[in-house]
Amino acid sequence: MKIVDVRELSVRLEGDVANAVVSFAEHDVSLVAVVSDVLRNGKPVIGLAFNSIGRFAQRGILCDRIIPRLRAAQTKDLLADDGRRFDPAKVVHVGMRNEKPGGHGDRAAAMAAIELAIWDLNAKLGDEPACHTIAQAFGRAEVAPTMTAYAAGGYYYPSQSAARLKEEFSRYRDLGFTAFKMKIGGASLAEDLARIEAALEVAGNGENLAVDANGRFDLETGLSYARAISPHGLRWYEEIGDPLDFDLNRRIAEVYPGAIATGENLFSAADVKNLLLFAGARRGLDLFQMDAGLSYGLGEYGRMLDLMEEHGFERHQAVPHGGHLINLHIVLGLGLGGCEAYPGVFQPFGGYPLACLIGGGRVRATQAPGFGLEEKPELRDPIACLCPEIFAHV
Amino acid sequence: MKIVDVRELSVRLEGDVANAVVSFAEHDVSLVAVVSDVLRNGKPVIGLAFNSIGRFAQRGILCDRIIPRLRAAQTKDLLADDGRRFDPAKVVHVGMRNEKPGGHGDRAAAMAAIELAIWDLNAKLGDEPACHTIAQAFGRAEVAPTMTAYAAGGYYYPSQSAARLKEEFSRYRDLGFTAFKMKIGGASLAEDLARIEAALEVAGNGENLAVDANGRFDLETGLSYARAISPHGLRWYEEIGDPLDFDLNRRIAEVYPGAIATGENLFSAADVKNLLLFAGARRGLDLFQMDAGLSYGLGEYGRMLDLMEEHGFERHQAVPHGGHLINLHIVLGLGLGGCEAYPGVFQPFGGYPLACLIGGGRVRATQAPGFGLEEKPELRDPIACLCPEIFAHV
Repeated sequence: MKIVDVRELSVRLEGDVANAVVSFAEHDVSLVAVVSDVLRNGKPVIGLAFNSIGRFAQRGILCDRIIPRLRAAQTKDLLADDGRRFDPAKVVHVGMRNEKPGGHGDRAAAMAAIELAIWDLNAKLGDEPACHTIAQAFGRAEVAPTMTAYAAGGYYYPSQSAARLKEEFSRYRDLGFTAFKMKIGGASLAEDLARIEAALEVAGNGENLAVDANGRFDLETGLSYARAISPHGLRWYEEIGDPLDFDLNRRIAEVYPGAIATGENLFSAADVKNLLLFAGARRGLDLFQMDAGLSYGLGEYGRMLDLMEEHGFERHQAVPHGGHLINLHIVLGLGLGGCEAYPGVFQPFGGYPLACLIGGGRVRATQAPGFGLEEKPELRDPIACLCPEIFAHV
Repeated sequence: MKIVDVRELSVRLEGDVANAVVSFAEHDVSLVAVVSDVLRNGKPVIGLAFNSIGRFAQRGILCDRIIPRLRAAQTKDLLADDGRRFDPAKVVHVGMRNEKPGGHGDRAAAMAAIELAIWDLNAKLGDEPACHTIAQAFGRAEVAPTMTAYAAGGYYYPSQSAARLKEEFSRYRDLGFTAFKMKIGGASLAEDLARIEAALEVAGNGENLAVDANGRFDLETGLSYARAISPHGLRWYEEIGDPLDFDLNRRIAEVYPGAIATGENLFSAADVKNLLLFAGARRGLDLFQMDAGLSYGLGEYGRMLDLMEEHGFERHQAVPHGGHLINLHIVLGLGLGGCEAYPGVFQPFGGYPLACLIGGGRVRATQAPGFGLEEKPELRDPIACLCPEIFAHV
């Protein structure tokens, strides 16, 4: 059994969505395929994955550095000892050859796409949904049947911002979501408070509404918002300052009584260790949003979870960034606290097929082998472009 | 005045050098050119720079993200208010459009190459060495006439390692260097101690010899080496553990009395703030090796120096990684503590032209405008490949 090809396709995100910091209109994502020489029904078994959502495709690092190293590798350097599956850790070891420590940015996302495609490939070789492959590999006795997903969005509108925010969240409620997340920091505190109050009319109470500053605030602004939103008892207050400003996070955690969420822009276990040590995170309360698809894949993500538990945090405090099928399987397989969903945006990668949405704010996996990306209608065209053999008639 | 072209050439490093972690045989560097519409002697004035040494070329991020944004920009979005030079901060603002915070890896090096080329271009427009342009921009009254450079190397050899290390350092001494840096961590502690003692026979005393573990050690190993090398009173003990393991660094700084050097694998001011707050660095003693060419350029590097001074450190404690002409001008212009040199390796980018080496372990700039890259013989071919007009007869 061997890998016969590794491919990449940079796919533009659809739609024109902006948060407080960036517009996603130019963002793209690397869809990757790891093609094995195993044939099923006359077609090769192919692992598919992508580098999550919200940063950029990584064609350069993949094609100039990582894929050539994998192509040059011996089969034994990539296969598990039993020869029946590929070893994600070995694949990362080969893909990262001669990369120096530190600098966990674009490279971490490039490597993650390949590593996750190996998990998809292994699950397909075992003819099972990836959540089962993941649970078994990490020594977990059970796969969670469903996960909690909240609807993220809550954008700014040029006019009638509060009224249109209520309309937006009402649409998400009609899709079966019961918890919501909205952007803050793109307007004045007074205007944001009015938007929060409007959103609460749909959410029902603070426990169903999170707010996300996308790393925009300095300490003073972050503290002003903390004081102003405290009475609402919100679900959480997300990414208040620069993602690496652990001292700022600690100072706000000292005065803000509710949950603080952060971590989606930390891409290594080394960074997460610093977050756990220095950012004032509170056991049993705060949330961690690291995303395997931006962080060298599931192996490194598992090390992040180990660090969390070593420092007294619980895995239900892990709520990955990136609402898509890959993170659904990771949350179910590892028993994490849930995931986000951006209904209707970040296509073709974002969200879950209709068969996964079961109402009550909960999502399940289907029985498709692997991550089930082939079952997502929006992904059919890019997958067919990258791997025509998948949908070919044989 | 406007920018009419931005170009990149990925150039492979020559030689086959390895440290304790990586081989540099596969490493390459992005040489970039920013071509203006200003003509001098019938040729366009062109800014040249590269993304330092020791990580990788960044063709993908440059060509897919940063250069297209610069090409699409209005001239006024890149020019200084007086219209007589380009504004490096504005160029970074445009080049980083829609990039999210955090993830300071490959992107930081890609952006740095372009930003530094703007400094080279501005110096050439002013017809002065870049160290003068830099000193003036940062409000410094004087440019240092020379800087201290130490000879880095001290590799492992398959046999007779200690004897060949002495030979290697003797060659550097004959080139005029008086201080040296050697690798540790690629052999047992006992063997490394024998190599250190051999090296001290050439260096004369510990003050002239630094050791570099290249981020290889865990806490226990780092502490063992700290205890064993303490009696030698070495120049410094460099990059002991993972570059982001600030807690490890702090624990070793608590027991190791000599200087500790680190920072070459931190690529943002946000990371440096954490280093200064959490790594136990000691005022007036420890050294910081951040490198503008890997860190978004001189603007971000200046913010790192500001943070150092805000936290009670002095700028002579800044000793940039990357021994080459660009960092020579930065050290002279900003009054820093010196720089490294890797005599004979990391070509064509590493080192200084013969006219710069003045003996006594000191290096000066020439009077060439800009960084003077065109005066370095090894760079002539790659520069001619990227910009044939520079050496053309008109």
